[in-house]
Amino acid sequence: MKYRNESKLTELKTALKKCGLKNGDTISFHHQLRNGDSVLNLTLEAVKELGVNNIRLAQNALFNVHKPVIDYIKDGIVSRIEGSINGVVGDYVSYHPLKNPAILRSHGRRWADVKTKNLGIDIAVIAASSSDEKGNCTGITGKNAFGPIVYSQIDAMKAKKVIVVTDNVVEYPCTYQEITEGFVDYVATVDSIGNPENIVSGSTKITDNPVKQQIAHDCISLMDAAGIIKNGMSFQSGAGGISLAATKYLGESLEEKNITASFVMGGLTKYLVDIYNKGGAKKLYYAQCFDTESVKFVSENPGMPVMDIGHYADPTSKSRTVDSLDTVVLGGTEVDTKFNVNVNTHSDGRLLHGIGGHQDTAAGAKLTIITVPLYRKKNPIVRENVTTVTTPNDVVDAVVTNEGIAINPKRKDLLEKVKGKINLVSIEELKNMAYVQTGKPVPLNLGDEVVAEIKWIDGKIIDRVYRVKEE
Amino acid sequence: MKYRNESKLTELKTALKKCGLKNGDTISFHHQLRNGDSVLNLTLEAVKELGVNNIRLAQNALFNVHKPVIDYIKDGIVSRIEGSINGVVGDYVSYHPLKNPAILRSHGRRWADVKTKNLGIDIAVIAASSSDEKGNCTGITGKNAFGPIVYSQIDAMKAKKVIVVTDNVVEYPCTYQEITEGFVDYVATVDSIGNPENIVSGSTKITDNPVKQQIAHDCISLMDAAGIIKNGMSFQSGAGGISLAATKYLGESLEEKNITASFVMGGLTKYLVDIYNKGGAKKLYYAQCFDTESVKFVSENPGMPVMDIGHYADPTSKSRTVDSLDTVVLGGTEVDTKFNVNVNTHSDGRLLHGIGGHQDTAAGAKLTIITVPLYRKKNPIVRENVTTVTTPNDVVDAVVTNEGIAINPKRKDLLEKVKGKINLVSIEELKNMAYVQTGKPVPLNLGDEVVAEIKWIDGKIIDRVYRVKEE
Repeated sequence: MKYRNESKLTELKTALKKCGLKNGDTISFHHQLRNGDSVLNLTLEAVKELGVNNIRLAQNALFNVHKPVIDYIKDGIVSRIEGSINGVVGDYVSYHPLKNPAILRSHGRRWADVKTKNLGIDIAVIAASSSDEKGNCTGITGKNAFGPIVYSQIDAMKAKKVIVVTDNVVEYPCTYQEITEGFVDYVATVDSIGNPENIVSGSTKITDNPVKQQIAHDCISLMDAAGIIKNGMSFQSGAGGISLAATKYLGESLEEKNITASFVMGGLTKYLVDIYNKGGAKKLYYAQCFDTESVKFVSENPGMPVMDIGHYADPTSKSRTVDSLDTVVLGGTEVDTKFNVNVNTHSDGRLLHGIGGHQDTAAGAKLTIITVPLYRKKNPIVRENVTTVTTPNDVVDAVVTNEGIAINPKRKDLLEKVKGKINLVSIEELKNMAYVQTGKPVPLNLGDEVVAEIKWIDGKIIDRVYRVKEE
Repeated sequence: MKYRNESKLTELKTALKKCGLKNGDTISFHHQLRNGDSVLNLTLEAVKELGVNNIRLAQNALFNVHKPVIDYIKDGIVSRIEGSINGVVGDYVSYHPLKNPAILRSHGRRWADVKTKNLGIDIAVIAASSSDEKGNCTGITGKNAFGPIVYSQIDAMKAKKVIVVTDNVVEYPCTYQEITEGFVDYVATVDSIGNPENIVSGSTKITDNPVKQQIAHDCISLMDAAGIIKNGMSFQSGAGGISLAATKYLGESLEEKNITASFVMGGLTKYLVDIYNKGGAKKLYYAQCFDTESVKFVSENPGMPVMDIGHYADPTSKSRTVDSLDTVVLGGTEVDTKFNVNVNTHSDGRLLHGIGGHQDTAAGAKLTIITVPLYRKKNPIVRENVTTVTTPNDVVDAVVTNEGIAINPKRKDLLEKVKGKINLVSIEELKNMAYVQTGKPVPLNLGDEVVAEIKWIDGKIIDRVYRVKEE
């Protein structure tokens, strides 16, 4: 009658076997170890050794470190992918589509689809930088700390079986516990969950390109003109060079004007931490961490509210933190004259990037700013049509470029607010300026096969990515 | 297309109406405001004003402050109860059964039954001492702070509609967030969620009765003899006078022997906090708070792991913190010679107490100690048969009384360990000693109608409580 107090410690291969791994299963992973991740590759190696094939990957995202996935695809071990495919694997898949299209979702939509079992998971494999033998685990402590685990709660709740993978078993109970033991079947120990050098970029760097710095400055000017920089404001930006610069300049503006934001949020970086430490924001609201400084901050400030991704962006929930955002500053690979934004493909059609929180925050924030250079090398970035629609024009309010700011004509209220305060150009003018420098976009050389389906936050397909033909 | 950023603030009656409250609905409440709670009564008042009846209450527990429930039962507004019924309402129901028996579950089993919708909730009403306008809320801050909300997460996840009730609306985002906005439909403001005097007992008091102190001391001696008091041990006790004393004496023992427990847990009290502060335990692991000192501790130590009740005790989860307990010290209203324990009824048959975590911890701990006096006034506590079986003999290891310690004969290993180290008596001897003082138990005067069903942690009925006939 007594419940038994058994350790859940085992090896990864044994854990997969005990979980009943079989052909055709779906295995999920978080991507918080980024380009330093060893866990996905180790898992697929074990899958191969177990003689299992036809796996559907349901990772949050793949990086260049996951190059071995290409071989697993060739070998028939991996046959389907639902998740972002950054870098080399995306490049490969662009030329060699899987039998079924890859499916890409935003952070929020993935959470919703796992929650509702639209994306059913057989085995969730969850990397943790510390875990106790029962599976209470965290990404906040340990030599390979990567910040709080925030993507996997829903996988842990909904997967048929759950394996925590760690290289650091700690005394029960684990101090931080983003995932708790009640959801965990096995704790698999490995030598190393990843290479810390590449887990977090120790050197997240603000752009030192003056053109890009100007774009970042113009974002702040636009926010200022729109009356958004005031006490109680809220802000998020991405972790790209321009976005980081915008965050830094916002911090300076808050300090100069003696203004306190109610919260700044996002993937945490030292620039957000700086704003908080200088009193520019009452709260830091974060999910994943993007640099070593922010991982350290999190471990030293346990009282700050950590968001799981459902709380952040689940479109099927009753409200989300992104809905309380005043402004978000985001990037893109292309923007078109209808204000549609592409973040997934390059202009040659290759699928190289994931959606991340782009759609989620764009749909939530009162003011969604897209920052792009007018052109890159000989390729126009502002153009008549984006190669892939990731984030649709309805939720994009302004485009800030190195040659001026364009506001979505649907946002008459915003146009009214900023009138006379900043110079605006039309998106058509921006496109024309780009084309003057680069000529018209090079025609795409695509086949009929669908490489990937891009989902919008409502779960419907908003666009498709097609096969790139070899030259 | 943009999501809307709307406040969820409203009045309680409006919130209930907007949630579509109708006859026959099930409304749930947590009990963390205890005998100071205003929220349950305010809600039923609003239900009455809305002309709705036949409500099923799915509270965690009722206290004397909920006396008005008796009138709501008489009026047909409340017709069913699933939850603990402490004090005056239990007394009333004992003489006047509802049409359907009340259903009592342990903390863990209630969580499981809400999770699996065996106990389906239409509207969860969640009292919070602070909430922002989106419903991110806590019990840790505010003038009526009662400690972290730990019972309602599952109600929030599973109820059709969720109302947070607060008397303290804070700026977005709320600092602590045991419940997050994604689950919340409305935030209803009231003048006061409760009377802080009675929410936590400012004066949780160790027993000053020397007989009871001796019982507590004997618990520690038993633990010591069983080899449990050593580095890395774990411990929980209840918040009754004897249990608190046992906790205090354990702390003294740890200090004296220079031993560090891996964790001490439970409803948090200053005595557990004392052990932690003196270095007697590496971690405090807590769910609810039982006194003002522990509420204060929680607000000042945000890094300590807080357990929700699912993590603590959900019997349908993959493991629970109670499964890692070495020892738990619990009370009882009666113990019988088969080692069955009653915590629900008095020896006259009246249903006056809930199960709480009694079953959960008894089933989880390696050593489950029940502390009781041999008799109370003219009533034998150790007896041939308990009036109601709450916690069955399979999970009860030892009974410590003022006249000696009895060990369950099934625990041969334990008997072996303590042999020669402490004096033992048989449970029969204890019963005989009790009967010598009190005579045999007074026969019960019960009717045929079932007042309540007591569930065991596996969800099956372990015993029934019958109507007490009026004299």
